[in-house]
Amino acid sequence: MLYHLIFYNFALRIVAIIDDWHGYSANVWLRKESFRVMKLRFWAYPLQLQHTFTVATCSRTTTPDVLVSIEHDGIVGYGEASMPPYLGESIESVMAFLSRVNLSQFHDPMMVDDILDYVDHIAPGNCAAKAAVDIALHDWCGKYLGQPLYRIWGLNPANTPFTTYTIGIDTPEVVREKTLEVEGRFRRLKVKVGVAGDHELIESIRSVSSLPLTVDANQGWTDKEKALDEIFWLKEQGVIMVEQPLPKTRLDDIAWLTQRSPLPVFADESLQRLQDVTRLAGCFHGINIKLMKCTGLREAQKMITVAKSLGMQIMLGCMTETSCAVSAAAQLSPLADFADLDGNLLISNDPYEGMKVVDGKITLNEKPGIGITDLR
Amino acid sequence: MLYHLIFYNFALRIVAIIDDWHGYSANVWLRKESFRVMKLRFWAYPLQLQHTFTVATCSRTTTPDVLVSIEHDGIVGYGEASMPPYLGESIESVMAFLSRVNLSQFHDPMMVDDILDYVDHIAPGNCAAKAAVDIALHDWCGKYLGQPLYRIWGLNPANTPFTTYTIGIDTPEVVREKTLEVEGRFRRLKVKVGVAGDHELIESIRSVSSLPLTVDANQGWTDKEKALDEIFWLKEQGVIMVEQPLPKTRLDDIAWLTQRSPLPVFADESLQRLQDVTRLAGCFHGINIKLMKCTGLREAQKMITVAKSLGMQIMLGCMTETSCAVSAAAQLSPLADFADLDGNLLISNDPYEGMKVVDGKITLNEKPGIGITDLR
Repeated sequence: MLYHLIFYNFALRIVAIIDDWHGYSANVWLRKESFRVMKLRFWAYPLQLQHTFTVATCSRTTTPDVLVSIEHDGIVGYGEASMPPYLGESIESVMAFLSRVNLSQFHDPMMVDDILDYVDHIAPGNCAAKAAVDIALHDWCGKYLGQPLYRIWGLNPANTPFTTYTIGIDTPEVVREKTLEVEGRFRRLKVKVGVAGDHELIESIRSVSSLPLTVDANQGWTDKEKALDEIFWLKEQGVIMVEQPLPKTRLDDIAWLTQRSPLPVFADESLQRLQDVTRLAGCFHGINIKLMKCTGLREAQKMITVAKSLGMQIMLGCMTETSCAVSAAAQLSPLADFADLDGNLLISNDPYEGMKVVDGKITLNEKPGIGITDLR
Repeated sequence: MLYHLIFYNFALRIVAIIDDWHGYSANVWLRKESFRVMKLRFWAYPLQLQHTFTVATCSRTTTPDVLVSIEHDGIVGYGEASMPPYLGESIESVMAFLSRVNLSQFHDPMMVDDILDYVDHIAPGNCAAKAAVDIALHDWCGKYLGQPLYRIWGLNPANTPFTTYTIGIDTPEVVREKTLEVEGRFRRLKVKVGVAGDHELIESIRSVSSLPLTVDANQGWTDKEKALDEIFWLKEQGVIMVEQPLPKTRLDDIAWLTQRSPLPVFADESLQRLQDVTRLAGCFHGINIKLMKCTGLREAQKMITVAKSLGMQIMLGCMTETSCAVSAAAQLSPLADFADLDGNLLISNDPYEGMKVVDGKITLNEKPGIGITDLR
């Protein structure tokens, strides 16, 4: 990358010299060529969490994150890779992957299909790193076309869903306090279940709020019969959907549960990319799509199309991430039945402003691309 | 429609009167509102065929066709409904359907998803009429964004496939003559089989050309064992794929044939819309998508995504139609393995110029939308 920049500066100096020698036309030609090379930049940006985040498998106060930009023809698109540790990527792995991405071979960022096919084939895995390029490229294209992505995709921004806001496991006092703190701003709350204290958590919320709840078991239940009993109990508590009730590979048990469940059952850990979707039809009522797991907006769109054609519902989820990746996912949200796009609200150092939650509903702005403003 | 036009003119007159009364600002507001109403126009345009067209079930010299335009904000998008009689639509049914389409309730043609959902729910069937609106709307959006659709969709125009050109059943002399006539312009020829004289047809072509052939049986074979023998014979003749070998509902027999076929077997009559695609996985190697059958570009895109995720190949087909619908389908062709987009070449009164076949390959231009020019 540094090498590329040095070469680029060197090339500009040559342009200046040629300018002196050969005058206007050679200069314009070379400047134009330099200008038209796609430039990928990336920098580590660890996210500070407002509250300690607890799921069935771990607790943490920061999330590793890499911010990305693609510049071409005077337009800059922004992207992001967020790496919750349990998914196996890190700042180092993302930087190493992005160092291998050579976009200078492409002359038109609008050729998204070719570019992202190339990026996907550089190495397996690296889904968050790939998503960072995907998001920045889509942001660039939207800015080039002068329109928000949802508009380019033919979607009505009025059709966005409510987003859930996650209430972490904590003491009853803190849970009640957090619930009251967000009560006026959200219409759906989400809680992690399948861990000790989950019933108390829900009861604490219910003591101060009657908002519909969604639950995420994060594979935390092991017995399908007990899981079904739990789901019936949760329904009585005003829960409206359940994510990943059983371990991700136990699809037969999940299908058994889904057939009997009074609440829609969604895949999270059972699902990563497009090729997983058809395999899950009949096992789940719906899928939770996350950009960092599926390599970005292009594949997320395809997953939505395939899942819907198989009669499945759509949820859009996120990691702890900035307004960049959250706003990117939000562009697709008019197609979603459920959304859990609160990742940017969980951090204290968001460098961007983008999608807003207004009265609990995802609210898209009219800015081009993914619709974010750099606050720095 | 006439009523709408009269009302529109009347509204403009009122604007003129108000202009006199209340001055500049009221005038601008009303003019802007009138200007921003989406206007759908449509007119019958029967297509004249250059040669009599013969398939397994009929022969004809004309095709009923309706041309469509959508105007909004000074931009005009073009669409088309072509109605080969065996699909059950007619100029009358299309005009009747389009008369029921009220686009004035929408204020933004870019909200393609909402608009086409509304159009699709006006009545079942009427797929060609729906495709006409879909194509005109997409053409409008591309022109609004100032880009060809393939570019908005992130596709590389260099990835387009060869198109086949259909050689109809005729005397050996005429077949040889037609073959030689198109030999230099195409790289793939297509023939209808499953009718008397199909072997002679192929042998006549082979006597003057070694171009790869595709065949369309149009459900013309009835015995699966004999069909398999035919396919082995066809492979020896340089045939590279087979469309719809058996009657459309005999999916078990088709699956049997597909498992044993040395050539890829594609669905045509077995397939109409998106909901048919998942059902056909395992029965066919690929699907032939036609805009007039699937209601247009929006659904065709989804069918491509779903079919590819199920490991199926893609063919883009057409009816006898003008450069309007053919150029629309061609926008998707960088995603196709096979293309049979020769419909516009079969007519003598094409009112548009659009996608060209150059050395047998679909060649997209850089015009916005579907990329056509009105020649009238």
